[in-house]
Amino acid sequence: MSHRKLMASLALTAVAAGALYSCKPKGAQAAVSGDAAEKAYVAPGKYDEFYNIVSGGFNGQLGIYGIPSGRLFRVVPVFSQSTESGYGFSEETKPMLNTSHGFVPWDDLHHLAISETNGEHDGRWVFVNGNNTPRIARIDLSTFRTAEIIEIPNSAGNHSSPFITENSEYVVAGTRFSVPLDDQNGDVPINTYKQNFRGTVSFIHPDPTTGNMSIAFQIKTPGVNFDLARAGKGKSHGWMFFSCYNTEKANTLLEVNASAKDKDFIMAVNWKKAEEYLKAGKGKKEAVKYAHNVYNESTHTATSTMMNEVTTLDPKECPDMLYFIPCPKSPHGCDTDPTGEYIVGSGKLAALIPVFSFTKIQQAIANKTYDGDYDGIPVIKYDAALYGEVQKPGLGPLHTEFDGKGNAYTSMFVSSEIVKWNIKDLKVLDRVPTYYSIGHLSIPGGPTAKPYGKYVIAYNKITKDRYLPTGPELTQSAQLYDISGDKMKLILDFPTNGEPHYAEAIPASMLMSKQRKIYKIEENMHPFVAKGEGQTKVVRNGNRVDVYMTAIRSHLTPDNIEGVKIGDEVFFHVTNLEQDWDVPHGFAVKGANNAEILIMPGETQTLAFKPDRVGIFPFYCTDFCSALHQEMQGYLRVSPAGSNVALLFSTGKNNGATANPADSSKAKTTKP
Amino acid sequence: MSHRKLMASLALTAVAAGALYSCKPKGAQAAVSGDAAEKAYVAPGKYDEFYNIVSGGFNGQLGIYGIPSGRLFRVVPVFSQSTESGYGFSEETKPMLNTSHGFVPWDDLHHLAISETNGEHDGRWVFVNGNNTPRIARIDLSTFRTAEIIEIPNSAGNHSSPFITENSEYVVAGTRFSVPLDDQNGDVPINTYKQNFRGTVSFIHPDPTTGNMSIAFQIKTPGVNFDLARAGKGKSHGWMFFSCYNTEKANTLLEVNASAKDKDFIMAVNWKKAEEYLKAGKGKKEAVKYAHNVYNESTHTATSTMMNEVTTLDPKECPDMLYFIPCPKSPHGCDTDPTGEYIVGSGKLAALIPVFSFTKIQQAIANKTYDGDYDGIPVIKYDAALYGEVQKPGLGPLHTEFDGKGNAYTSMFVSSEIVKWNIKDLKVLDRVPTYYSIGHLSIPGGPTAKPYGKYVIAYNKITKDRYLPTGPELTQSAQLYDISGDKMKLILDFPTNGEPHYAEAIPASMLMSKQRKIYKIEENMHPFVAKGEGQTKVVRNGNRVDVYMTAIRSHLTPDNIEGVKIGDEVFFHVTNLEQDWDVPHGFAVKGANNAEILIMPGETQTLAFKPDRVGIFPFYCTDFCSALHQEMQGYLRVSPAGSNVALLFSTGKNNGATANPADSSKAKTTKP
Repeated sequence: MSHRKLMASLALTAVAAGALYSCKPKGAQAAVSGDAAEKAYVAPGKYDEFYNIVSGGFNGQLGIYGIPSGRLFRVVPVFSQSTESGYGFSEETKPMLNTSHGFVPWDDLHHLAISETNGEHDGRWVFVNGNNTPRIARIDLSTFRTAEIIEIPNSAGNHSSPFITENSEYVVAGTRFSVPLDDQNGDVPINTYKQNFRGTVSFIHPDPTTGNMSIAFQIKTPGVNFDLARAGKGKSHGWMFFSCYNTEKANTLLEVNASAKDKDFIMAVNWKKAEEYLKAGKGKKEAVKYAHNVYNESTHTATSTMMNEVTTLDPKECPDMLYFIPCPKSPHGCDTDPTGEYIVGSGKLAALIPVFSFTKIQQAIANKTYDGDYDGIPVIKYDAALYGEVQKPGLGPLHTEFDGKGNAYTSMFVSSEIVKWNIKDLKVLDRVPTYYSIGHLSIPGGPTAKPYGKYVIAYNKITKDRYLPTGPELTQSAQLYDISGDKMKLILDFPTNGEPHYAEAIPASMLMSKQRKIYKIEENMHPFVAKGEGQTKVVRNGNRVDVYMTAIRSHLTPDNIEGVKIGDEVFFHVTNLEQDWDVPHGFAVKGANNAEILIMPGETQTLAFKPDRVGIFPFYCTDFCSALHQEMQGYLRVSPAGSNVALLFSTGKNNGATANPADSSKAKTTKP
Repeated sequence: MSHRKLMASLALTAVAAGALYSCKPKGAQAAVSGDAAEKAYVAPGKYDEFYNIVSGGFNGQLGIYGIPSGRLFRVVPVFSQSTESGYGFSEETKPMLNTSHGFVPWDDLHHLAISETNGEHDGRWVFVNGNNTPRIARIDLSTFRTAEIIEIPNSAGNHSSPFITENSEYVVAGTRFSVPLDDQNGDVPINTYKQNFRGTVSFIHPDPTTGNMSIAFQIKTPGVNFDLARAGKGKSHGWMFFSCYNTEKANTLLEVNASAKDKDFIMAVNWKKAEEYLKAGKGKKEAVKYAHNVYNESTHTATSTMMNEVTTLDPKECPDMLYFIPCPKSPHGCDTDPTGEYIVGSGKLAALIPVFSFTKIQQAIANKTYDGDYDGIPVIKYDAALYGEVQKPGLGPLHTEFDGKGNAYTSMFVSSEIVKWNIKDLKVLDRVPTYYSIGHLSIPGGPTAKPYGKYVIAYNKITKDRYLPTGPELTQSAQLYDISGDKMKLILDFPTNGEPHYAEAIPASMLMSKQRKIYKIEENMHPFVAKGEGQTKVVRNGNRVDVYMTAIRSHLTPDNIEGVKIGDEVFFHVTNLEQDWDVPHGFAVKGANNAEILIMPGETQTLAFKPDRVGIFPFYCTDFCSALHQEMQGYLRVSPAGSNVALLFSTGKNNGATANPADSSKAKTTKP
């Protein structure tokens, strides 16, 4: 079925369902109540109620917004180089983007999962996925910095990721694309897909204290596409549910060929059982290659380690670990309610929403109420797992979140709306248009055992006529709805940085007080730190020149450097001596084939520079730091290769440079 | 004077002046009137009144915001690589970042100037400066894309840039750092600054029809630091005014050594006179090297040309072209009022604001009321040029804009406030706190002959406790004030992407209707375009493999590619066949050492990929485009070097690949 045919088919379904909404609802004014301005407005000097942590999708970054204002406070670079901060450009951060494929400057960051304790957000870390070159990153919520990135072997399109268990035992990562697995390393035709392509789901264990990740195990699966997942909670703790599509195992024109079957699957994984198999020695160590990158906050430097082994479990040798549950059709979202009893499957081409019961699934397994198997894995009968179906919900259901008051909210991509329904009786209670083509939606705490339930936020794929236009490329956006009453009320449209793929929100009070403000200079263990101006120096080692530099309002030390020659590589190690909050310094050199570095108080960062010509290269502080910021500058003299200009450096000495750092630091105090 | 001493000195000045404000005003609530929410709020479905075009400072990009909502609609990559769009990563856009120093992935974008006709914004282009590796870029306001970048030779720290004349005759660029000029190419000690270092100001001419820039001429100047500039207008049309500091010509610890003199200068340039000298043959052609990069919207490809000559004027040979006007002390902003009669100099260490009169300056020149010369250039007597002084304005005046109703608004960095004063009687009328440390400020149309005068926006350097904190690195921000009444009223705090260095706002109506929505596929002249699926193909040329690919909802053609081998470089040329607004497609390949590409409707962009291993590499559409976006994917098979796997490609053929593109495009229509 082509896209056109599909749309026609869906339109017919809509007509058949007597739906009262259009694909492109026009005019939101009617939906905006008079007090919307007051609800969305956060007065100057006041704080937002929630941190909204929003994936940037294809920008590879994470956006930190306030709710209800919709204001963007910070873009956290994760998988993508950031010219603003120097992340991925500085010597310290480049290892963060290393992979088994070498340096990868970008990824497609789709989903995130805030760490949990007892099924509730605990505000320690947020895990995010790299979709293209499979990786999981961990961001520290006390610094809003990327602390760690681990590559996922045996994966290709890490979309069904990351989803977290109720005590952060595991963060899971399912491969979107099945491929020949790494250990096969074979050169096989693409049309041998059915024989040679396999899927995997990976269970990554974050250390409960440090958060440091390791791949506990991978489960090999049939060659389907994994899309999304959610952990069981409460009574279903110990289980993980993955949506999968392309159970047709098509390898071309999936638009048509992966939409052929009426039902695909939700894959239920009993990971407690998997742990038993591991203990029983069923795990197989396989040779693979993947990078594990960790940022050290003492040395202010990342290291990348190439790992070479992973433990896999083969379901053929591990019965009672995996089950398939039929789900109409091409399921996308797969969401568990706050109690853990209900699993909502959202078939993006389906005209209803099936709700499965964990209790019934367990009974079906006990009674072996199967409809045969799929590649040796039992397929539970649809009716045996089903609690019930939400009828006529809308077109193109994608994702469901919960308000903790017994209601579910499902995003409808094709009919551009959010539909609210009751989990118990499966009755539709309310529907509101979204502008346009909603993907994910988010309720603060919505995927946890403790939703806050005050707002739902729509993340839309198309904005078209909603904002001042900006040429062919338009913003994507979010919409904020008040769900404190019976009816959803649209409060605010706010545009987003990048593609707002998914988001989780967490009360401001959980994060505000724990924010790190500075790095203590005395704890700085960077190998090239200068902990005071007296420690600044310039050291030559062959063609390598290391500048131990300090920055403090409003000068750089040294600020006159000579003796560098063509052929040298200069490493400017800049330590920010400030010990106050919100006083970063930046550093850049004319003509560098590099980004700037942005250095937080107490931190050291390094800019590598290879001069291309003889002459004077100015450098300066790039972050407006003080009334005399514009005076915070210096000069590097580059002499010809083979020149005999001596290595000299100083600050405040106008009458010739000196090699004596003590002189250098004293010099400026003796000046008028 | 150290920073600490300076602050103490300024504090004393504040006390002496009996100032009623503090450096860190606390609590904005009192300043927010009850209807602020309604004034700042733009209801869903409604549009903002103004496009606010905000420089990103050290992120090298341009932000497009709405006023009064403060919402960010678009980040336009200019001098910095963008992982989101692939700007600076795709083969087509990499030439945009070429310089005489090679590929430079970043710059520090400080100021912008919207093109003008008759002294008013005409909404055609916006010019911006690259501060670090001197460049000027032009952004097309019908596409919000960077159309052109020109490097500035004989410059080092292109800060006093870009400022525009009233009919866009010139965009000027003054060097912040004086350096030995390029033609000297000498290796000189830094402490020979006074003998060897020179400044320049460059006059860049945009073609009135196309906007294409060329360097008309450069004027060599004494070795001071140029900071900012403004063109004359109305009666002062034909003149340009530059602020300069470090007239001490210090080369180290400028914090102290460039703050020694009581007065530095505003440099007045009679550019009509410069044009006469050029016509009279006084221009000297000098050998230099600079890149000129132009993006072609037909081929969707940028080219970089290395230029090798520039015309310079030496003031020694061109009398009556340059004049210095003393200005207290370390002038930063240098702003001309809407009539062009008044030039406001803001000495960042000064306790008053001098206002100069263009009429008096002309009289002084006519009468040679000079105070000697500086490096041969006449210095006009301070009192002879002065209209008057604004007394006790606050601490750390930086920049002034105008409301068109006879009032000026000056930002005060040290005392963190905006001060409103009357241009005629120089009386202070109002002052409001900013949170905190305001740099630039902006009134829509404020630097032109026709200010709109409804709002003033403060661009602040420090936010500290104003927003939910995000670790050591905090957002910078803007504040919106209503200036429609006698008193300024704070309406909104909004955070910004990057450092909001400067901004100009333009009425929405001037840009909305002229926005380009798509590129017509039939006008696509890209050398590797496929204008329909029938034109898709894969071509080998030695180790280079070109994939002519198309993207349309919801498949890529071809989506099965075989015959690529280790050692090949694959160029995916992806043409987006869509012809509807807001339907971009994205493209990425697993393991590529590259960013994604984002392809607008009708456009072709190219991702270069060098496979590092044998196996299957999935690729997919990265921009959620349709209900079957997740099905929009394909596979590349990479075989060992020397393998004899034939080059094959197809879409929709499950039973083996084909080399026949006709088959390929037909295949999918014959499938169920």
